[in-house]
Amino acid sequence: MPIGPIKTAPGAVTTLLLFLWSASCLADELADESAVIESESESFRIEKVADGLEFPWAIAFLPDGDALVSERAAGRIIRLDLDSGVTSVPTGGPDDVFIKDNAGMLDVMLHPEYESNRLVYYCYTAGDDQLNTMVVERASFDDDRFTNRERIFTALPWYHNSIVYGCRLAFRDASLFVTMGDRWDLRHLSQSPGSHIGKVLRLNHDGSAPADNPWTNMPGAAPEVFSLGNRNPQGLVIHPTTGELWEHEHGPRGGDEINVIEAGRNYGWPVITYGKEYSGEPVGDGLTEKEGMEQPIHYYVPSIAPSDMFFYFGEAFPAWRGNLFIGALAGAHLNRLVVEGREVVHEERLLEDRGWRVRMVEQGPDDLIYLGVDTGGLYRLVPESEAP
Amino acid sequence: MPIGPIKTAPGAVTTLLLFLWSASCLADELADESAVIESESESFRIEKVADGLEFPWAIAFLPDGDALVSERAAGRIIRLDLDSGVTSVPTGGPDDVFIKDNAGMLDVMLHPEYESNRLVYYCYTAGDDQLNTMVVERASFDDDRFTNRERIFTALPWYHNSIVYGCRLAFRDASLFVTMGDRWDLRHLSQSPGSHIGKVLRLNHDGSAPADNPWTNMPGAAPEVFSLGNRNPQGLVIHPTTGELWEHEHGPRGGDEINVIEAGRNYGWPVITYGKEYSGEPVGDGLTEKEGMEQPIHYYVPSIAPSDMFFYFGEAFPAWRGNLFIGALAGAHLNRLVVEGREVVHEERLLEDRGWRVRMVEQGPDDLIYLGVDTGGLYRLVPESEAP
Repeated sequence: MPIGPIKTAPGAVTTLLLFLWSASCLADELADESAVIESESESFRIEKVADGLEFPWAIAFLPDGDALVSERAAGRIIRLDLDSGVTSVPTGGPDDVFIKDNAGMLDVMLHPEYESNRLVYYCYTAGDDQLNTMVVERASFDDDRFTNRERIFTALPWYHNSIVYGCRLAFRDASLFVTMGDRWDLRHLSQSPGSHIGKVLRLNHDGSAPADNPWTNMPGAAPEVFSLGNRNPQGLVIHPTTGELWEHEHGPRGGDEINVIEAGRNYGWPVITYGKEYSGEPVGDGLTEKEGMEQPIHYYVPSIAPSDMFFYFGEAFPAWRGNLFIGALAGAHLNRLVVEGREVVHEERLLEDRGWRVRMVEQGPDDLIYLGVDTGGLYRLVPESEAP
Repeated sequence: MPIGPIKTAPGAVTTLLLFLWSASCLADELADESAVIESESESFRIEKVADGLEFPWAIAFLPDGDALVSERAAGRIIRLDLDSGVTSVPTGGPDDVFIKDNAGMLDVMLHPEYESNRLVYYCYTAGDDQLNTMVVERASFDDDRFTNRERIFTALPWYHNSIVYGCRLAFRDASLFVTMGDRWDLRHLSQSPGSHIGKVLRLNHDGSAPADNPWTNMPGAAPEVFSLGNRNPQGLVIHPTTGELWEHEHGPRGGDEINVIEAGRNYGWPVITYGKEYSGEPVGDGLTEKEGMEQPIHYYVPSIAPSDMFFYFGEAFPAWRGNLFIGALAGAHLNRLVVEGREVVHEERLLEDRGWRVRMVEQGPDDLIYLGVDTGGLYRLVPESEAP
């Protein structure tokens, strides 16, 4: 997709020629706050909020103006001053985080009534190289301390590799939705409600299974299962106006999907997919559709490797209101989708020239758009009109 | 392997020419009780005990001279009069047996102290096409009734296909060993103690997990797991003199294994195997050995598809004392192995001309050898000297 030219200071041109420098250095230079980026419908600058973070994975904005940020590869949740970029490490967080490949500290969210109950929810990988899994905990957060840590959910079965955990959280009313990936090797379990592997799960806020979940009464079913056939869901959000549960998941080679998740539906992995094996071979019988299985509302071939998402409903970028923003890892950009109902009608790829593996995307309470990238930077998009 | 000529009555020669007849008819004729079979070291006749059974899978000899026989495809355990061949169906057995492909009523054993406690142990597949698994139960058996059915173990996770359940039982002292197959699709779980899939398990007689099992203290481990990497173990027996736990398991295409199972060991599937995928491709990286993984004490290439086994220690066939007998399904014979310590030093394939898929092999209290075959016949091998 076309994006507008980047207005750069002369020094930045020299920098661009030094393309053999590390992506990290290059990204730092490109984040020059004087550069205005003109995209299809909004012009903005990028401000660096912080850097040196260890694979920032999720952000939760605190009412006092700071934020909690999960650092996957540090296995911790830090507090970040969004003005100064200064970080601190609250005490009392998990001490059994398994960190390797995809594993580590993953999502973090405030409870919808955080202001009164001080509850923070987070998910991460617990265990070690011999056996590990994705767990969800909640804890009280106050005075820079986590207290009353409570493990409310453990995905079963535990397994010994270190990849494909899903692990995004979303609250809707009395429900807490949690995604769990297929652990790569265990793809076939995605089709069966007997485990948590390759699923979207629905819990009560205390981690118990709601009595009206779709497979609750089936002998052998994991009562938390809400939908089947979800490969590696790393994006999960409630649509702010419709209340729909939007999810995205990585395909294998091609076939990243966006789905609207409904109770008891089967989203097809690994029976149907628009992707192929990494070897180039078909997945299974090579089907893209099958009766009883849902079609995605959008898919990406080739893969962008999506991570995190949100619907923008702020005031800072009026032209983007209602758009769906998705981070792209392998795709290395910020994916903007114009959505009408459940249809994707337009796509724009922002920030394609930066080499940023965008892991975290969120709308801040200031209506700005926050991004975290694997090289450790945390940035916000600021409208051109708000130039300093 | 060579076997001796079959002495037949003239009529049987005609029968042999009618090889287009069904294997069942052919087998019936070959079971002519007047035919003496001369094998390498023993001569014997075959007596038909019963026929018309629905895939007899296991036999347990009752002290009163009858036997309990599990019929896989009927999903029940019947009582069989070994003299008359008359069967009856005890009341009170399981009513939730899932029957399809490999699934149904599988192993049945008397508790070692059956004469005083009347306990029968059995395992089968519970559930349905949407979700099913292997379960172990025990019940009191008296007056042709099962009472006090108690489900003491359920293999996790449940899954939706209908194949590869293992499901052989063996008692040793305070332990009840149980095998669980890899469900085909879930092979990778065999390498991980986080589930029961592809394992030999060790329970107490009440189904609880012994505190000294090898992975009991590992977070996320299934506490019943005794060994890893067992693909589809359908033979399990305690060596009558050494007390060793002997197991066999199906390989994929080739690579059926005999193992002596020890606590905490990894028998390699699907990382190492002497078999190949059914497509002919290597399994995984095509390894046959790897540090930290056990070599089988014997393997079959091509596969015989082993089912059930016992060590013969009776008086009726003195030349066979100490030999290991294994049923062969695809191999369609009775496999006799001469074993020295843990070494297989000689193999003989008995009854190769019958086309019998031998599913069940056991030494009877009369020291005769009992066989059950998939076409529904139950036979015993009688020494030539005991001709009627």
